[in-house]
Amino acid sequence: MAKKKLNVGMIGYGFMARTHSNAFRKVGNFFDLDYEIVLKAVCGRNEAGVKAFNDKWGYERIESDWRKLVEAKDIDLIDICTPNDLHLEMAVAAAKAGKMIICEKPLARNSAEGEQMVAAVEAAKVPNFVSYNYRRIPAVTLAKKLIDEGRLGKIFHYRAKFLQDWTISADLPVGGTGLWRLDVNAAGSGVTGDLLAHCIDTAIWLNGSIKDVSAMTETFIKERKNTFTGEAQKIGIDDACTFMGHFENGSLATFESTRYARGHKALYTLEINGEKASIMWDLHDLHRLQWFDHKDEGQLRGWRSIHITDGDHPYMKNWWVPGLQIGYEHSFVHQVADFLDGVSKGKLVGPTFRDALETTRVCDAVIESAKSGSWQNVKK
Amino acid sequence: MAKKKLNVGMIGYGFMARTHSNAFRKVGNFFDLDYEIVLKAVCGRNEAGVKAFNDKWGYERIESDWRKLVEAKDIDLIDICTPNDLHLEMAVAAAKAGKMIICEKPLARNSAEGEQMVAAVEAAKVPNFVSYNYRRIPAVTLAKKLIDEGRLGKIFHYRAKFLQDWTISADLPVGGTGLWRLDVNAAGSGVTGDLLAHCIDTAIWLNGSIKDVSAMTETFIKERKNTFTGEAQKIGIDDACTFMGHFENGSLATFESTRYARGHKALYTLEINGEKASIMWDLHDLHRLQWFDHKDEGQLRGWRSIHITDGDHPYMKNWWVPGLQIGYEHSFVHQVADFLDGVSKGKLVGPTFRDALETTRVCDAVIESAKSGSWQNVKK
Amino acid sequence: MAKKKLNVGMIGYGFMARTHSNAFRKVGNFFDLDYEIVLKAVCGRNEAGVKAFNDKWGYERIESDWRKLVEAKDIDLIDICTPNDLHLEMAVAAAKAGKMIICEKPLARNSAEGEQMVAAVEAAKVPNFVSYNYRRIPAVTLAKKLIDEGRLGKIFHYRAKFLQDWTISADLPVGGTGLWRLDVNAAGSGVTGDLLAHCIDTAIWLNGSIKDVSAMTETFIKERKNTFTGEAQKIGIDDACTFMGHFENGSLATFESTRYARGHKALYTLEINGEKASIMWDLHDLHRLQWFDHKDEGQLRGWRSIHITDGDHPYMKNWWVPGLQIGYEHSFVHQVADFLDGVSKGKLVGPTFRDALETTRVCDAVIESAKSGSWQNVKK
Amino acid sequence: MAKKKLNVGMIGYGFMARTHSNAFRKVGNFFDLDYEIVLKAVCGRNEAGVKAFNDKWGYERIESDWRKLVEAKDIDLIDICTPNDLHLEMAVAAAKAGKMIICEKPLARNSAEGEQMVAAVEAAKVPNFVSYNYRRIPAVTLAKKLIDEGRLGKIFHYRAKFLQDWTISADLPVGGTGLWRLDVNAAGSGVTGDLLAHCIDTAIWLNGSIKDVSAMTETFIKERKNTFTGEAQKIGIDDACTFMGHFENGSLATFESTRYARGHKALYTLEINGEKASIMWDLHDLHRLQWFDHKDEGQLRGWRSIHITDGDHPYMKNWWVPGLQIGYEHSFVHQVADFLDGVSKGKLVGPTFRDALETTRVCDAVIESAKSGSWQNVKK
Repeated sequence: MAKKKLNVGMIGYGFMARTHSNAFRKVGNFFDLDYEIVLKAVCGRNEAGVKAFNDKWGYERIESDWRKLVEAKDIDLIDICTPNDLHLEMAVAAAKAGKMIICEKPLARNSAEGEQMVAAVEAAKVPNFVSYNYRRIPAVTLAKKLIDEGRLGKIFHYRAKFLQDWTISADLPVGGTGLWRLDVNAAGSGVTGDLLAHCIDTAIWLNGSIKDVSAMTETFIKERKNTFTGEAQKIGIDDACTFMGHFENGSLATFESTRYARGHKALYTLEINGEKASIMWDLHDLHRLQWFDHKDEGQLRGWRSIHITDGDHPYMKNWWVPGLQIGYEHSFVHQVADFLDGVSKGKLVGPTFRDALETTRVCDAVIESAKSGSWQNVKK
Repeated sequence: MAKKKLNVGMIGYGFMARTHSNAFRKVGNFFDLDYEIVLKAVCGRNEAGVKAFNDKWGYERIESDWRKLVEAKDIDLIDICTPNDLHLEMAVAAAKAGKMIICEKPLARNSAEGEQMVAAVEAAKVPNFVSYNYRRIPAVTLAKKLIDEGRLGKIFHYRAKFLQDWTISADLPVGGTGLWRLDVNAAGSGVTGDLLAHCIDTAIWLNGSIKDVSAMTETFIKERKNTFTGEAQKIGIDDACTFMGHFENGSLATFESTRYARGHKALYTLEINGEKASIMWDLHDLHRLQWFDHKDEGQLRGWRSIHITDGDHPYMKNWWVPGLQIGYEHSFVHQVADFLDGVSKGKLVGPTFRDALETTRVCDAVIESAKSGSWQNVKK
Repeated sequence: MAKKKLNVGMIGYGFMARTHSNAFRKVGNFFDLDYEIVLKAVCGRNEAGVKAFNDKWGYERIESDWRKLVEAKDIDLIDICTPNDLHLEMAVAAAKAGKMIICEKPLARNSAEGEQMVAAVEAAKVPNFVSYNYRRIPAVTLAKKLIDEGRLGKIFHYRAKFLQDWTISADLPVGGTGLWRLDVNAAGSGVTGDLLAHCIDTAIWLNGSIKDVSAMTETFIKERKNTFTGEAQKIGIDDACTFMGHFENGSLATFESTRYARGHKALYTLEINGEKASIMWDLHDLHRLQWFDHKDEGQLRGWRSIHITDGDHPYMKNWWVPGLQIGYEHSFVHQVADFLDGVSKGKLVGPTFRDALETTRVCDAVIESAKSGSWQNVKK
Repeated sequence: MAKKKLNVGMIGYGFMARTHSNAFRKVGNFFDLDYEIVLKAVCGRNEAGVKAFNDKWGYERIESDWRKLVEAKDIDLIDICTPNDLHLEMAVAAAKAGKMIICEKPLARNSAEGEQMVAAVEAAKVPNFVSYNYRRIPAVTLAKKLIDEGRLGKIFHYRAKFLQDWTISADLPVGGTGLWRLDVNAAGSGVTGDLLAHCIDTAIWLNGSIKDVSAMTETFIKERKNTFTGEAQKIGIDDACTFMGHFENGSLATFESTRYARGHKALYTLEINGEKASIMWDLHDLHRLQWFDHKDEGQLRGWRSIHITDGDHPYMKNWWVPGLQIGYEHSFVHQVADFLDGVSKGKLVGPTFRDALETTRVCDAVIESAKSGSWQNVKK
């Protein structure tokens, strides 16, 4: 049976556009899908930039106006890989045009924007998805399965952190490629929306909703030179953020993120302690899951380091053979495979815009608590 | 030259009395001291208990009344290894009797008690010491040295946690041997005074004073059977405690402790991120220090796992040869060696009662913040 | 400038054909090449098998006769991904037809076959390459660079092992897909040619030629059922092989391989001890390199765990950002990139057939030593 | 009940004399024994050296003539902690004098000497013990228990190595304190008797007798200055030794030792692969045992890192509480406890002289094989 074609229109040509394009190109080689993905058009404002990008990725055409792309008849799916401040307008337009939408995380700069985006996709009834890719690292997916099977029992603690060190130098400017992340207007927030949002999405997925939070943020470097203006610019983002809180299920949350942890590149770690068992995972060794099971015989109890490369591990029968690890990029392939499977079956696959809105609401509460110095309930 | 004898009077015969007695007995075999320690008398209320203890340790006599011991002419040093609620009275009496004092941590149940103890020893001008032993794990002592040499540069983050899992069962009673730790009247607090106090002492030593805190505590199991009365007793301690805060030097604190982290026995970890370098340490592998130095050549930067067993590592020339690790108990030997060295030289060696009071004040602020839900300044 | 097309003809449709096809498809997305690779034709005897394979990979046509493929005018490069006993005939024919050749490792079942293959490609002057892919895991490539820069000084020891556990069950048959590896006629040898060959290729590349060896082999399970005949078949391969020996540079070799090491999936580890520094690497965490440098300050000496994900690590600027790891499959992408770069520049890139012949000669000496019980010199 | 006194006469005052003295002094504090150990006399030729040693350890008297000590009426147990070339004469004399004997490992320089020692203690019927202390690291003792319970099933592989780096410098002399280990006349052999002997003792204990071996040795530095004569001396010891072989139970042996493995201080590692389970242990983290159990559920199989600090782990109920590790020295305490328990019960506890003779016979076969270049059977 011939596969249906699914034409992708990509907005953006930066780092995330590469990870998504790679996923679109690879997914059919490894997963059985009803759709054949076609890289139809890529869109960006910087002509040379888009051109260089497309020399590698081979979209059929280049667009310079995202509105034209969004309305193009031959596009089925819009993929938004732009800075956060553009998500709202693009997603609403794409929804109105009846396109399926994949949007890079975080959903938006804040929940006010996010609510409009949710309203738009739900009104339009289009498939919608936010790229919190870490849910589909096989080790994390296995953690979800173990929790859902009740193997951890009552959960007492959920702790996560996401530590980086790339902004320690005061000489690092704000503004250009990648550096929009230091600009609060473009990004909405600093590590909270960029890094903690990942931790929060995974946490809600694994452990349910977060009820309330108390947070602390810090901006270590108060001013940076803007790459466009050459002028010093006041830095409005949070360089570091710690929060504690309660999940609806009664477990305690301890979360931290920073870009000032010397020695850590992208150390996203999570740990869940349940009555019966515990789990740890770490992005720097993403192909391993640490598992402690209290029902193991006493003298032999210990943390197991599970090498997640076997055929009975999530997604892994589609890849290589036991012992041969996959990497970061594969989580994006998995999410495209699952998204398309949902499209085939006419069901939404998470994280949807609505799911991602919940994460953004936690982020809002965190930022508000850090400002006010008081506990904040997460908006329902 | 003949060594001076130093006669020890031990109050208590439980776990901590064993660790201290072992230190007293061993220290002279490995360190050059001006003093010869004599295990003179041990004191406890339970006759059979003290007797069984002393069959192993060989104190010259057994006392049943601690007041008599404290006032005994032939005792030079009183070592208080009792539950926390007895520290105040014993320490004040020992100070009045002019004895040197070693007191198990935490100093007291709260800073009100602690202040009286500090006043007593300072009025009496007696050598005084609180057994925060982890300062003298060689890896931690090396961390102190590296920080003091300025090798980390400006500090951004200090994070510590102390995770255990021994109280998860609701069937565990409160009251008897070791279980006084679950009784708020005897202990003062739960994990805050028992575990976080260790983390706080090390933190202040390594990174300076803590200015303010915001905390959250939880008591997962609200009632336990009392081993003495057989009745259910309301549990007043904190089973888990997380706090965040600011050090005086501008760095951020993230601390957590619990006895509900399945899979962890006594996992005290600390991590310090500085502008130039970072340090990690972990009690479960206490003979290693993790070190990341940003000035290492870029392509070869990584965390070094330093096996702290060489002659140029703190205290280690007194033990074995490279590669052969020491354990938990040795930290107590080191503190006795340092304490006695201070006595010889007529100078106080930390942590003194005053040092330990600062830790207790942080604990008080933590407990108060958790109750009130608001930030608390640490009392000066 | 338009890229030149390079048409690939693939022989085989099993596991290795997938890894190679993936590399051909991805390489242009991540590396700047003069060539555009076209997946022109795939060839296999089992019609349904090739068809299923090609539904995923999309070669333009399917061939059933490899001789026809080898001689096809529109094919530039023949990739041999078949069992070992077919390498000789195919490679010789492809060379005669003037095709570039990539051949899966090991080169051949033995050096007698290998010598004919080398003669053929050298007579035909065609680019030729053997897929010892582990050379191009970035951590291993970095090791090569460090050694070539003289950072290790005089080498004392090279030790390597490759441990698996997939053939422990006596119920595992011999014969069909993947199981030809248990048939000495198809494979030539057991773990020696399959696993140790990888270790030997890397070793020669990193540390120079091996002079002599003394080996021991074992076949734990002497008979297995044949999947084709249903009959018991005597097993002629080595299930396990250990050898020791001398490198030309005076360093000592300790090598071991087995498929009976319960708990290890594909644990290829290597360690090199030099006068000044040492290196360790391990396929189960392939994105890390362990580095010990004796010139580090004494008290801070330790093994560094380097997370090989930075832009200044080999090949890594072509992938993601620091902290985000790649996996097994990327080593194949790297070798295609390097191979094509060599083709562009008209120079041979290793491992060539001649390089691989040296590895096969070591394997022959190992097998012969195990049979004779005496030391064997490696044939020059 | 009053304990019986057991008077110890120590010969030697070097590193091993310290480890043994510490064990004698501590054992009664932690283990229930019928005997009270008395440090009666220590003997050494260098008056100042013995004196300095005894300032720390407090033996009741110092002897300068070991023959006098061996024959002293008030000595019950002779502990031989001298260079290897003195073991024979001292042990035979002590046996003739009817003393219990503890002898440092290896038993002797070769099995010819060892046989005379065995004959002497067996004729005299005196308790005799050789200090292969690693058997009594709790993790190793647990490994023994697991193997004896049949949990590993049929054993396929036993691999061990002992890597050090302390003799790499050509400036290191031969002769004086500790440096007798580089003198073949004093030591008998190099790493074979010093390091591999430990590996072999543990291996025989865990996995039964070794049948045959094939070995390779190397002396990297051929000449060193003698500390006594100041002259260059030809080095007769093996700096490195690798051997392979067969155990009587059909499993394969792969052993290696060296003092030229830059970065390793005293890395004794062992690994045993059985049909059902596997074990790994490593002296640099001696308080952990790695355990892989194939009967664990497939998707959750992994190596468990067991923190050997619980009350149900061998010897550990006598020490601290879960999570608090012991170190190297404790293995000596355990062997004294077990030895004395054997004395109480009138039964020999291993490793006896006869057990240690088997290890020395393997060492002899290893050295002979390395010389001859051929396989050697181990003498029965």
